[in-house]
Amino acid sequence: MAPTLVASRTVLPPAGAVPPKGGLAAERTPTPSTSCVFPPYEGTLPALKPALNFPPELLLRAQGVKVAFFDVDGVLTDGGLYMSEDGERIKRFNTLDGHGLKLLQQAGITPAVITGRDSPALRARLQALGITHAHFGTEDKRPAAEITLQVLGLDWSAAAAMGDDWPDLAVMRRAALSCAPVNAHAEVRAQAHFITQASGGQGAAREFCDLLLVAGGSYARLLQAYAR
Amino acid sequence: MAPTLVASRTVLPPAGAVPPKGGLAAERTPTPSTSCVFPPYEGTLPALKPALNFPPELLLRAQGVKVAFFDVDGVLTDGGLYMSEDGERIKRFNTLDGHGLKLLQQAGITPAVITGRDSPALRARLQALGITHAHFGTEDKRPAAEITLQVLGLDWSAAAAMGDDWPDLAVMRRAALSCAPVNAHAEVRAQAHFITQASGGQGAAREFCDLLLVAGGSYARLLQAYAR
Amino acid sequence: MAPTLVASRTVLPPAGAVPPKGGLAAERTPTPSTSCVFPPYEGTLPALKPALNFPPELLLRAQGVKVAFFDVDGVLTDGGLYMSEDGERIKRFNTLDGHGLKLLQQAGITPAVITGRDSPALRARLQALGITHAHFGTEDKRPAAEITLQVLGLDWSAAAAMGDDWPDLAVMRRAALSCAPVNAHAEVRAQAHFITQASGGQGAAREFCDLLLVAGGSYARLLQAYAR
Amino acid sequence: MAPTLVASRTVLPPAGAVPPKGGLAAERTPTPSTSCVFPPYEGTLPALKPALNFPPELLLRAQGVKVAFFDVDGVLTDGGLYMSEDGERIKRFNTLDGHGLKLLQQAGITPAVITGRDSPALRARLQALGITHAHFGTEDKRPAAEITLQVLGLDWSAAAAMGDDWPDLAVMRRAALSCAPVNAHAEVRAQAHFITQASGGQGAAREFCDLLLVAGGSYARLLQAYAR
Repeated sequence: MAPTLVASRTVLPPAGAVPPKGGLAAERTPTPSTSCVFPPYEGTLPALKPALNFPPELLLRAQGVKVAFFDVDGVLTDGGLYMSEDGERIKRFNTLDGHGLKLLQQAGITPAVITGRDSPALRARLQALGITHAHFGTEDKRPAAEITLQVLGLDWSAAAAMGDDWPDLAVMRRAALSCAPVNAHAEVRAQAHFITQASGGQGAAREFCDLLLVAGGSYARLLQAYAR
Repeated sequence: MAPTLVASRTVLPPAGAVPPKGGLAAERTPTPSTSCVFPPYEGTLPALKPALNFPPELLLRAQGVKVAFFDVDGVLTDGGLYMSEDGERIKRFNTLDGHGLKLLQQAGITPAVITGRDSPALRARLQALGITHAHFGTEDKRPAAEITLQVLGLDWSAAAAMGDDWPDLAVMRRAALSCAPVNAHAEVRAQAHFITQASGGQGAAREFCDLLLVAGGSYARLLQAYAR
Repeated sequence: MAPTLVASRTVLPPAGAVPPKGGLAAERTPTPSTSCVFPPYEGTLPALKPALNFPPELLLRAQGVKVAFFDVDGVLTDGGLYMSEDGERIKRFNTLDGHGLKLLQQAGITPAVITGRDSPALRARLQALGITHAHFGTEDKRPAAEITLQVLGLDWSAAAAMGDDWPDLAVMRRAALSCAPVNAHAEVRAQAHFITQASGGQGAAREFCDLLLVAGGSYARLLQAYAR
Repeated sequence: MAPTLVASRTVLPPAGAVPPKGGLAAERTPTPSTSCVFPPYEGTLPALKPALNFPPELLLRAQGVKVAFFDVDGVLTDGGLYMSEDGERIKRFNTLDGHGLKLLQQAGITPAVITGRDSPALRARLQALGITHAHFGTEDKRPAAEITLQVLGLDWSAAAAMGDDWPDLAVMRRAALSCAPVNAHAEVRAQAHFITQASGGQGAAREFCDLLLVAGGSYARLLQAYAR
């Protein structure tokens, strides 16, 4: 049975609302002091109600998504290319994004990567994340995306795409849902249905994953498993 | 049946306008779900109208530019010098900038690099971008720029320049159009015709390329090729 | 004659208050020029009154804390994973955080690390900081925390925890005081008692240490030792 | 003869004022197009009037400074410690800061470094900048500063100091002028006469150098040499 996403607070903050900085966080019922034996809270912690939500129009668009295409540079990274004499030896990824990509797979949504570049560092990272659908050194991204769709037996109506630059436009414009990090090129932001709060490589891809998970109805269930 | 993507907005946002963060992006007619065969959208996507524009005064200045001089540190990078025992082994460039430098060349505008430093990492990056007009370890940048102008058969009225620190001033003050990233030194910002939204190494050089491409009349054509 | 440094302000700024940028800092009585012999100020500098403070509710929660659990990626780092072909060879930590972790130990509060990842770079850093209570490659963090509590003879009422992603929730919800950096995942921010001003890897952990030191009554004494 | 700092604009912007982002920069007399032979502008460019200025109280404090003490981590860097298995192999410095440290020396102000850490990368960087007065691995910074003062035949009234954390307080409180980057620890910001706009490693040290150069009367002359 699929979990229900209960919106307990009647007035939800807009997606990505940031709590007041540097002060006291939102009030909760105080955790009483305890001197009980281990494990002290087993079975007693209340269920965790998700704090995050998204506008209905976005959720509607994201609802049938079964595959999510990700560009790499500027999306899974901050666009930084750490060059050495031998080329690109290091790539900086983000831990929040990594967790989001794992959650997507747990929810039955396939993450796929299409990138114009290639490097051993990228391949090592994708392997660690269990991402098998990947195209490297691909300047023309649409045919690559269509190969992945065909392999998965899906069409564009089941596809979401996240990109930050012109080479991502052809895929983003065809996908049912498109997303750009806030620091994407202006033309890409103009075409995106959803613009993340975070910049690329700072958690932008995680926000996109969150949207897909909430829309697909898996978010609350997945979150709950971490709250015990 | 292929879905229609209607570009309904006629009022373009000002240059560098940032869409509202973390929420729903600008409204477009929803893409209806579809179950069509591959390739579903071939030849049917409407033309992409550029979202980016610039003030007329800037466009006028940029119109005759045939060569664009770029400083490296603080312009093509965020000014970070990653030092190791053996000197500067790594340099962090930006993927948005790289694409802009390639587009410039496609539009017949020559990117040229003049830098006070030198490193194998920089040379490797410039080679990958196809940039052949480059001066390294050049403290006095004006004579270097004039050599490049002479080689190209151009004069200062056809030159644009982007810099972030005092050694860039002599070239910037002579060029028809000068640009500084927002994090440039105060004196350089004070001399620049155009100050980018992004910081150096975060897409600042791309904004400069965008301006040159829009002013030169190539932007819409180049963009269109990526939108299909 | 030694100059006098008068701490004239009696109203402390709220926690995390940022002074006006780029201008003159808060007024103090001017330090007069002097031509005295070395050491000119020995024994004559006035005591340093702490500028930092925290809301009473937070101080109350933090008062009995004897152990502080820290996640690594996104908390002691900015979440950046610098991947190379051989995995994660470099980790970027922060000098402010490092000093805070040392001060905690001087105040008798044990810093403990529980992380889902592992790398030689992390282990080298923890060793340099004298942190001996550490669990690596630990996906399920609650049992790890309870082992540390048992070793230290403490229970959850003496524990504080700082995390940025879902795997940290189980520990954070059980701890008497929980903290998240401002760039933590939305669900983690929603559960935290204290949200830092700084992002992870930019001094967020230091703010958490500061809170624990102020609440525990050691802050002013530790600071004073550095002011002479 | 020392140059005069002419404040031609009657209303100077506050130190560090940032021009409007992403748009047209402040108007200047247009550079006329030209088809002249090289060098086209030799002897014809108008003198460059400095755009930067500082509050009189700060200039007064900075006027007699002959030596400037710099912390490294968090001041000349952003506080990031890039750790590998073998310790700290890479340090990220900033190109704007590097130029400022060179200008200081040209103006007869000695930059000196006192740091609690040590690494080959740091030593290589200081050597490249010509900084010879340096103490490494120095936890207690006051005696180190006094040794430098003694070597230079100066006392604290001729000293300025820039730091970001508690170990810098003893030197900062004794110096005639003290400076902190905006991301310094709250206690250090509270003690600083001048708080920079930029963060450490992003040009903060350059702002401090600018202040010292303006106060010492060398700024306009040094700038002018770069404007021809």
